Amino acid sequence: MSTRAFSFDTFGLEHLRMIDVEEPDPGPGQVKLRVLACSLNYRDTLMVAGQYDPRMPLPLVPLSDGVGEVVAIGPGVERVAVGDRVAATFAPRWIAGPPERALIRHTRGGPLPGMLAEERTLDAEGVVKVPAHLSDEEAATLPCAALTAWSSLVTEGPVCAGMSVLVQGTGGVSLFALQLAKLLGARVMATSSSDEKLERVRALGADAVLNYRETPAWGREAAKWAGGDGVDLVVEVGGAKTFEESLKAIRPGGVVSLIGNLSGSSAPVPLTRILMSQVRVQGILVGHRVGFEAMNRAVEAHELRPVVDRVFPFEAAPEAFRYLQSGEHFGKVVIRVAR
Amino acid sequence: MSTRAFSFDTFGLEHLRMIDVEEPDPGPGQVKLRVLACSLNYRDTLMVAGQYDPRMPLPLVPLSDGVGEVVAIGPGVERVAVGDRVAATFAPRWIAGPPERALIRHTRGGPLPGMLAEERTLDAEGVVKVPAHLSDEEAATLPCAALTAWSSLVTEGPVCAGMSVLVQGTGGVSLFALQLAKLLGARVMATSSSDEKLERVRALGADAVLNYRETPAWGREAAKWAGGDGVDLVVEVGGAKTFEESLKAIRPGGVVSLIGNLSGSSAPVPLTRILMSQVRVQGILVGHRVGFEAMNRAVEAHELRPVVDRVFPFEAAPEAFRYLQSGEHFGKVVIRVAR
Amino acid sequence: MSTRAFSFDTFGLEHLRMIDVEEPDPGPGQVKLRVLACSLNYRDTLMVAGQYDPRMPLPLVPLSDGVGEVVAIGPGVERVAVGDRVAATFAPRWIAGPPERALIRHTRGGPLPGMLAEERTLDAEGVVKVPAHLSDEEAATLPCAALTAWSSLVTEGPVCAGMSVLVQGTGGVSLFALQLAKLLGARVMATSSSDEKLERVRALGADAVLNYRETPAWGREAAKWAGGDGVDLVVEVGGAKTFEESLKAIRPGGVVSLIGNLSGSSAPVPLTRILMSQVRVQGILVGHRVGFEAMNRAVEAHELRPVVDRVFPFEAAPEAFRYLQSGEHFGKVVIRVAR
Amino acid sequence: MSTRAFSFDTFGLEHLRMIDVEEPDPGPGQVKLRVLACSLNYRDTLMVAGQYDPRMPLPLVPLSDGVGEVVAIGPGVERVAVGDRVAATFAPRWIAGPPERALIRHTRGGPLPGMLAEERTLDAEGVVKVPAHLSDEEAATLPCAALTAWSSLVTEGPVCAGMSVLVQGTGGVSLFALQLAKLLGARVMATSSSDEKLERVRALGADAVLNYRETPAWGREAAKWAGGDGVDLVVEVGGAKTFEESLKAIRPGGVVSLIGNLSGSSAPVPLTRILMSQVRVQGILVGHRVGFEAMNRAVEAHELRPVVDRVFPFEAAPEAFRYLQSGEHFGKVVIRVAR
Repeated sequence: MSTRAFSFDTFGLEHLRMIDVEEPDPGPGQVKLRVLACSLNYRDTLMVAGQYDPRMPLPLVPLSDGVGEVVAIGPGVERVAVGDRVAATFAPRWIAGPPERALIRHTRGGPLPGMLAEERTLDAEGVVKVPAHLSDEEAATLPCAALTAWSSLVTEGPVCAGMSVLVQGTGGVSLFALQLAKLLGARVMATSSSDEKLERVRALGADAVLNYRETPAWGREAAKWAGGDGVDLVVEVGGAKTFEESLKAIRPGGVVSLIGNLSGSSAPVPLTRILMSQVRVQGILVGHRVGFEAMNRAVEAHELRPVVDRVFPFEAAPEAFRYLQSGEHFGKVVIRVAR
Repeated sequence: MSTRAFSFDTFGLEHLRMIDVEEPDPGPGQVKLRVLACSLNYRDTLMVAGQYDPRMPLPLVPLSDGVGEVVAIGPGVERVAVGDRVAATFAPRWIAGPPERALIRHTRGGPLPGMLAEERTLDAEGVVKVPAHLSDEEAATLPCAALTAWSSLVTEGPVCAGMSVLVQGTGGVSLFALQLAKLLGARVMATSSSDEKLERVRALGADAVLNYRETPAWGREAAKWAGGDGVDLVVEVGGAKTFEESLKAIRPGGVVSLIGNLSGSSAPVPLTRILMSQVRVQGILVGHRVGFEAMNRAVEAHELRPVVDRVFPFEAAPEAFRYLQSGEHFGKVVIRVAR
Repeated sequence: MSTRAFSFDTFGLEHLRMIDVEEPDPGPGQVKLRVLACSLNYRDTLMVAGQYDPRMPLPLVPLSDGVGEVVAIGPGVERVAVGDRVAATFAPRWIAGPPERALIRHTRGGPLPGMLAEERTLDAEGVVKVPAHLSDEEAATLPCAALTAWSSLVTEGPVCAGMSVLVQGTGGVSLFALQLAKLLGARVMATSSSDEKLERVRALGADAVLNYRETPAWGREAAKWAGGDGVDLVVEVGGAKTFEESLKAIRPGGVVSLIGNLSGSSAPVPLTRILMSQVRVQGILVGHRVGFEAMNRAVEAHELRPVVDRVFPFEAAPEAFRYLQSGEHFGKVVIRVAR
Repeated sequence: MSTRAFSFDTFGLEHLRMIDVEEPDPGPGQVKLRVLACSLNYRDTLMVAGQYDPRMPLPLVPLSDGVGEVVAIGPGVERVAVGDRVAATFAPRWIAGPPERALIRHTRGGPLPGMLAEERTLDAEGVVKVPAHLSDEEAATLPCAALTAWSSLVTEGPVCAGMSVLVQGTGGVSLFALQLAKLLGARVMATSSSDEKLERVRALGADAVLNYRETPAWGREAAKWAGGDGVDLVVEVGGAKTFEESLKAIRPGGVVSLIGNLSGSSAPVPLTRILMSQVRVQGILVGHRVGFEAMNRAVEAHELRPVVDRVFPFEAAPEAFRYLQSGEHFGKVVIRVAR
């Protein structure tokens, strides 16, 4: 029986359109999901635009993040059962340990087929159960944005109670970094160019906020707020534009987690400052499954609720992309798939 | 009784001259050393030239690295005894743990008085015994260059047997990184622009060598040599010029230790590559005392012999600076102090 | 000018008596404290009884834990200033890094003179500022009990949000472990033989409680409560009697922090279980200064309030010892020193 | 086409006999091996005797360690190719990360069918390529004994150059621990009751040897040999009998790796010593695949040669078991399977 998916065979959002697909029954070690909801990441918009990797083989079903209900399992599957609600993992082969190339080059939503489909048959090793208290839409936000934040703070941190964390802006990773850092007991400063958004991050738990339009040289302000030698960890999502201020905010021996490249992929980095302060600049590529499961235990224990900005119906998926690109969102943009 | 030291009261090597000084007797918790030998680091030449920090208070006795014999101890000193041969540590207050600003801003040879003197009275917490098998001249090379290499490989690594390490050029840190990485069981590739120097690093244990003049795009060559996903750790001393090749050499999840800035203090860093490969860029500021002591146990167990290029007599100290600046050396430049 | 202290020259609480002492002015690197409050640990009662180390040199002023106001500083002291409120550290030479024997054999309250005195002159390296929101009595509880808990959870953990922790009984370390584990975002189960005390630990934040008199085989119950594979970390204070149940509670790969030996110093340990589950049994000897300072940042950020059971006046110090030995306390027993 | 295997349907070596089996063709994600050689571990003799787990389901083909040539691969297999020489991993599902129960309960040679067979069809995730310089017999010794030693020294260490390691006796794990510790640059002391065996471990690289029959209280001797505060890491294979001496040998903050239980599964452990010296007792359950691969890189780089004591032909497998039980071996006992 055929189901529907969105796919593009030429780069450009205008080429994203609904098609009929025949999703196979699960083979050994596989599960079949009825997809419930998906969420969008900035990477997905780059992917569709051909800016992520112009050599990406097409056609492609986009979106790395999706949650579904297991409707069938293949022989030998023990990790999950029919009826479980699971999320697909970003790099389905990366279970734990170092990010070997063979593990991290297979990522969902490109080159692996993405989740913007009514059904998906996946390797059982590449799914994880999601916390029960979350709605489908909330659960769909976890695979990339939340795990990236968790990997920054915990797997490659670690941040603990009493430490200070700086998060930038109000995108998905930053809001999760704020929420998760609070669970870990850290103090958090958030930056934004909008006072209205800063009020909202305060409501989410930020201990301090900073409008970087009013205070362009925010690095020293952040260091002062942190006290002691400066901020313990910066979740750097801005890329070239903000990196230098982050290095002013960070304490000697601190960590700058490098996440995104919103403002350009290459930056003139003050190497001397990195070495004179023995700073660690840590690239973060989402994270592995064991990290996802550890994060879920934290999300569940604290009944953390992801910030969902807006939910689009399946048919309106292209609009969801456009909305994300507009930059008007606060938190995650979600697509409801199953009715 | 007065002794001699070199000092400068105006930036510029031409202002470095011998003076008579009265070194105090050791107070509580202090030791007095008869300095035996000193070694030079690139930082020392920057210091004298006023390029390290133009606001550095003068006059200043230069050189962070020096070894001496304990000739007197103050009340309460238990760490060392009269007759012990010890090295001064770079940051005498940094015993272990994170590099707190209050610990790392007091560094020998600027702003703290340096070792280019016949006698020095120091806090006992800021000296460590040196391995017995080393000559005074060899022992004098350890405090900065060797410890920087050790901190890169072990404290902020760690590198272990079977891993691959790339070292650049034939300066002090690089040669120590080569020698220490071999002690740790790693495979090492060394680069240089001189085939003659590459022959010498081979004799020191390098498993592979690469002439970066012949192969300017050496990053991929190094990755190929390493096998698997690429090099596990690069000891990056070149700064802006070489950083990009280092990022091509490194494996996903690997470490680029940022040591020096021989070719410029700011580099256009490809941030995307750092995050897509989850690379760690780790600034290294020499290291702490506990690391020094751990390194000495390794140096002693393996009877490692530092590479001393040339030894200058005390009176010829300014020539030693000029020789280091010439870049002709292979290994460490040393000044013999005590007769 | 002479001040008062408690001292014993023969083992036995009956020999603890008030004496007049002349505390020296601070020398280089030293500070003089007007002691404000002290707290008692089980170790102190063993010390006075001669059960901790029968060869401990006497006379001795007991108590490792004390907080005072800096009333004078010696030459060269930068860490603290006159007027600061500081705690003495348990092992004043252990700043950070591994517990070298030379560092951990000098511990306050035996063999180093303890804090049960109106004035104390100490090395400045062996004190830390205490959080401002704490009363003197509360601050006096931190040096041993709180830091032991912190070292178990963080320095030798680490515990993070979503992990499960089991604490035993309602002594000082256990209550701090409960409170600190909650700051870190963990779920906590507490055990006790008294339902009344279990109600109080619930009020302090315990997610689950267990009466080990009613459920002597509590190990499996705890594992069931933790979910998944079992408890992530057990703060083991019971010694021989409880160790076996702790090993039943712990998950494969989990950590049993070995703190105290309330029920005997040697236990028949099921080694096979340790290796078959790859458990880590981690002895904890209080902790180092850098850990103390990190803990204080967490205590301060969360305005954690230590549980003070009862405060005795200075003159009634021996009664405080007897009260601690009675086992009736819930939380810390404190002695107010300064009026 | 049927092939041969050894199997037992009742506990007891006398029930181990050759049978004909039909090994299936590899399904998706599977590989078929022509088994070349197997090695024996003490665990295998316990397994056959019913002493490892009397409830182990029978019949069972024994032996966890085996190396084979890939003769066929199922759909989707990318990790290995036909013609590759690979070893089966002990816990085929444990790729990396913590030892989750669901991962470590599936171990080869019980309850999973073992390698003492002419052919084996396995999940491709549960095999690793072996170093080219090794003979089949040498390669067959790696999966349990060598990896256990590696996990102790590196994954749960880490040991590095200049550190001191103590290994006990001349069983498989101990000899690998000696050889691998030398690769890592450590100094190694080995113990045995036989001077002849001690000569052989010296030839393998031991820096010091100790006859524990002549020196029953060897703990302090070992600490003295190590220098400083004592031995950094003890690979404890003896169990109850030797544990107490190991605790005397270890330095404060050192690690006792708990491997085997040759002399009994429960020991009266001096808990006070563990906590007063902040010792870590680390259970080791062989190790994960990522560790195996890292070890292989070290074995390959150094062309390490495992110590094979004796090779039995396939038909004489029961004799190999008896020989291992005799305790006369020095190094590994191997069974050659393929002709």
